[in-house]
Amino acid sequence: MIKLITILTSNVKRINVFSQAKYSTTFLPQFSSEKYDVKRKKFGVLNSTDVDYFKSVLSEDRVLTEESDVLPFNIDWIKNCRGQSQLVLKPKTTEEVSQILSYCNEKHLAICPQGGNTGLVGGSVPVFDEIVLNFGLMNNIISLDDISGALVCEAGCVLENLDNYVRDHNLIMPLDLGAKGSCQIGGNVSTNAGGLRLLRYGNLHGSVLGLEAVKADGTVVNCLRTLKKDNTGYHLKHLFIGSEGTLGVVTKVAIHCPVLPKSVSLGYFGVESFENVLKLYQNAKSSLGEILSAFEMADNDSISATLDSFKLANPIAEYPFYVLLETHGSNEAHDNEKLSRFLTQGMERGLILDGTVTSELTKMKNIWHIRESIAGAGLAGGYVFKYDVSLPLSRYYALVHTLRERFSHPARVYGYGHVGDGNIHINVIVPEYSKEITAKLEPFIFEEVAKVGGSISAEHGIGFRKPQFIHYSKDKTALNLMKDLKKSMDPNGILNPYKVLPDVVT
Amino acid sequence: MIKLITILTSNVKRINVFSQAKYSTTFLPQFSSEKYDVKRKKFGVLNSTDVDYFKSVLSEDRVLTEESDVLPFNIDWIKNCRGQSQLVLKPKTTEEVSQILSYCNEKHLAICPQGGNTGLVGGSVPVFDEIVLNFGLMNNIISLDDISGALVCEAGCVLENLDNYVRDHNLIMPLDLGAKGSCQIGGNVSTNAGGLRLLRYGNLHGSVLGLEAVKADGTVVNCLRTLKKDNTGYHLKHLFIGSEGTLGVVTKVAIHCPVLPKSVSLGYFGVESFENVLKLYQNAKSSLGEILSAFEMADNDSISATLDSFKLANPIAEYPFYVLLETHGSNEAHDNEKLSRFLTQGMERGLILDGTVTSELTKMKNIWHIRESIAGAGLAGGYVFKYDVSLPLSRYYALVHTLRERFSHPARVYGYGHVGDGNIHINVIVPEYSKEITAKLEPFIFEEVAKVGGSISAEHGIGFRKPQFIHYSKDKTALNLMKDLKKSMDPNGILNPYKVLPDVVT
Repeated sequence: MIKLITILTSNVKRINVFSQAKYSTTFLPQFSSEKYDVKRKKFGVLNSTDVDYFKSVLSEDRVLTEESDVLPFNIDWIKNCRGQSQLVLKPKTTEEVSQILSYCNEKHLAICPQGGNTGLVGGSVPVFDEIVLNFGLMNNIISLDDISGALVCEAGCVLENLDNYVRDHNLIMPLDLGAKGSCQIGGNVSTNAGGLRLLRYGNLHGSVLGLEAVKADGTVVNCLRTLKKDNTGYHLKHLFIGSEGTLGVVTKVAIHCPVLPKSVSLGYFGVESFENVLKLYQNAKSSLGEILSAFEMADNDSISATLDSFKLANPIAEYPFYVLLETHGSNEAHDNEKLSRFLTQGMERGLILDGTVTSELTKMKNIWHIRESIAGAGLAGGYVFKYDVSLPLSRYYALVHTLRERFSHPARVYGYGHVGDGNIHINVIVPEYSKEITAKLEPFIFEEVAKVGGSISAEHGIGFRKPQFIHYSKDKTALNLMKDLKKSMDPNGILNPYKVLPDVVT
Repeated sequence: MIKLITILTSNVKRINVFSQAKYSTTFLPQFSSEKYDVKRKKFGVLNSTDVDYFKSVLSEDRVLTEESDVLPFNIDWIKNCRGQSQLVLKPKTTEEVSQILSYCNEKHLAICPQGGNTGLVGGSVPVFDEIVLNFGLMNNIISLDDISGALVCEAGCVLENLDNYVRDHNLIMPLDLGAKGSCQIGGNVSTNAGGLRLLRYGNLHGSVLGLEAVKADGTVVNCLRTLKKDNTGYHLKHLFIGSEGTLGVVTKVAIHCPVLPKSVSLGYFGVESFENVLKLYQNAKSSLGEILSAFEMADNDSISATLDSFKLANPIAEYPFYVLLETHGSNEAHDNEKLSRFLTQGMERGLILDGTVTSELTKMKNIWHIRESIAGAGLAGGYVFKYDVSLPLSRYYALVHTLRERFSHPARVYGYGHVGDGNIHINVIVPEYSKEITAKLEPFIFEEVAKVGGSISAEHGIGFRKPQFIHYSKDKTALNLMKDLKKSMDPNGILNPYKVLPDVVT
């Protein structure tokens, strides 16, 4: 039965699964260096003179050296990676960041820049004794232009806080992630975070108006412009968007915020097959056009695991596939009419078996909560291998079938993601981590992706976990150019070592 | 009187002012090197052995050496710049481009890459004897994915041809320019062309999915991916978007094409003051929201000069300001209702004095034709200084007043542009070029722009005409990073010399 309930809403806040699933110190993962057989590179070794210097730059309380204080900064959110850093620095200003980097560059001390530490490829935690440069205290909003929608803020601002702030000014942030309650805008920009509404509002290369970054040698590069159009020389900001802190650390961001939609609706549907999910997507593009803001899918296993893990209730009965569809529009009556037509057609054609459409805030929150909780499902009960790939839509779900054939019980394989962007997340859950299972998964999964011209990392990045596989998606000529850029911008290689760049280009 | 006429249209083609205003050989502009006192840099000098080599790489008919054959490639569209090249090469493949660049790099022969030669800052013509690398023959469409909207083509494809091609597949190109009938996609990408619908479809950093480029040393960098999301390493394509052929030449482009709107409407309004233009823009953002695809303005002088120059008829009476507003939507009835409400409110509030709204193909073409012809107006009757700046909306039109105060009759100053992007074009028309007038305009105009945090080049680029002014919009630290990148990627400086980068960073 379809229930169509509509109210006007101007402020959608949602519960954040990332705050529920924070790592627990009772379980300490293996050191990344041992788990993945990595050798320390020839960087300087921290000594007490260095620590004294950092204390002279920052106040003492912003220099963490106690093992128990440092520990949380060494472990990533999914408890997959663990570094051995002995020092966390918490700058409050760009000048402090500049002084720290300048010093580290001179002494060849390696740095691991860290935002909200919600990354999934080990990019935000150290591998060995890199100094953690944490941006949590650089969290000031600098300015907001209500008319142009240009927001300027420091890198450590939490995405959800920014979204709440701009909503009060009739705007929204152009990106939305499950991790919004913890992730920081500097990390979002550095990793080119994608998320739930890229389909509508585009990627960060389009939304970021300007930024300020600090190079390895401490040079502050000021590209903090707020103009929509600015063709004056090289478009340098893009060097720092998605390079995961290896070319420079982002300290300030100017970003374009779209207008808060006057009307928001959410549909959640049960669908028989992935083929029908695709047909429904084609219908949505045609019928909903410019108001379509998200088109997400999850298979039955994803939803079941999520409902089990977090004791949630499914608002509709059980189906092989689920579609979550959102609209953002400027006219409630028009949006409802478009949605009704889409629904009627979808049901008549048998594409929608059951579903609910709502504009009621609480109901929308509950449905989004299920979708956003999938990422954290299964983390408590076993070890989760997480993959995040782009594939041609015709091959979008085939990889899940292939992996299910390759892994039998007790392994569980499920797929969910952003259909509109050709981006699927695949979780493989096993009782515990083993190198044998890893070897069976990797590079197999990347080879399968490469065969159909996909991307081995759609939005999560390369981080620590994937440099050795980057060649499955990046041409040798491109990898060589990456190396040239790294050499030019960070000749001592102190910024986020062991990440992104492969040791050897083959 | 407002006339509301609506028909469904699926294929909007427009007349191209650029084909009307092609330069004439009867008038030869002064050499750029003399006009702007530039000294030749120490590059190799072309000899017959070089020409023989190029003939061995290309077929003989694609190596132009006759003075009369080469002349058109030496002069830019607005007859402002004239180079002294003696050689035009017309490659058909990336491999040929690679061989040419590899040879030139070894011999230190300078290169000027050239697309449709519709640029307005002298970036696409040589200054001295640079070899012109013209992409006109690399004009194959490689593939189009109807479902994802990914178009892959060679750099020399003309924008309008691409648009016509993808329209047959229910898609449109994400950018639209007055020069569409001549400009090429490789040039569009290399200059980060903006245009008429950036407001709706975003900029090329968001739309370009991938590209192939050839570095100065002949290395082909393959980033020709067609995925919406691909976070595998550095986002290298952005180095070539907007760097005006100084870091590499773009040979192939993959670009995302939005869905062809089912319903298109155009409004053309007479407005009393610029203040009211801004109010109308705010109304349009609120009432038309997601269907607004263009919001353009022109002052009375812009329209008068255009109507005079091209013997066109104005569809409405004479007003101090004109607004051209376009909508792209998926539901004709909804779009009309939104437009009607916007119109009614605009008229009731006195913001719209007169106007016409139409969805009739011929009428829309005629109105767009007026708007697109402004760029070419006045070219025949005098010398046009063209400026293209971004400004905060509150200061958008003030610069026109300032310049009118500074220049009296017979100089004419007019302003028009993309209000939605904060981008105004200002033309200053004088009977003939003189260094005195130039000195009165420059750097004055750039200083005024810099005072309010604007950009001295919103969409036209820096090219040959503006490197010495780039510091008004680009920080010293950013300029130094540009120099580092240039040094790393084109150490001999053979790619488009005398362009974009200033000789000295101050």
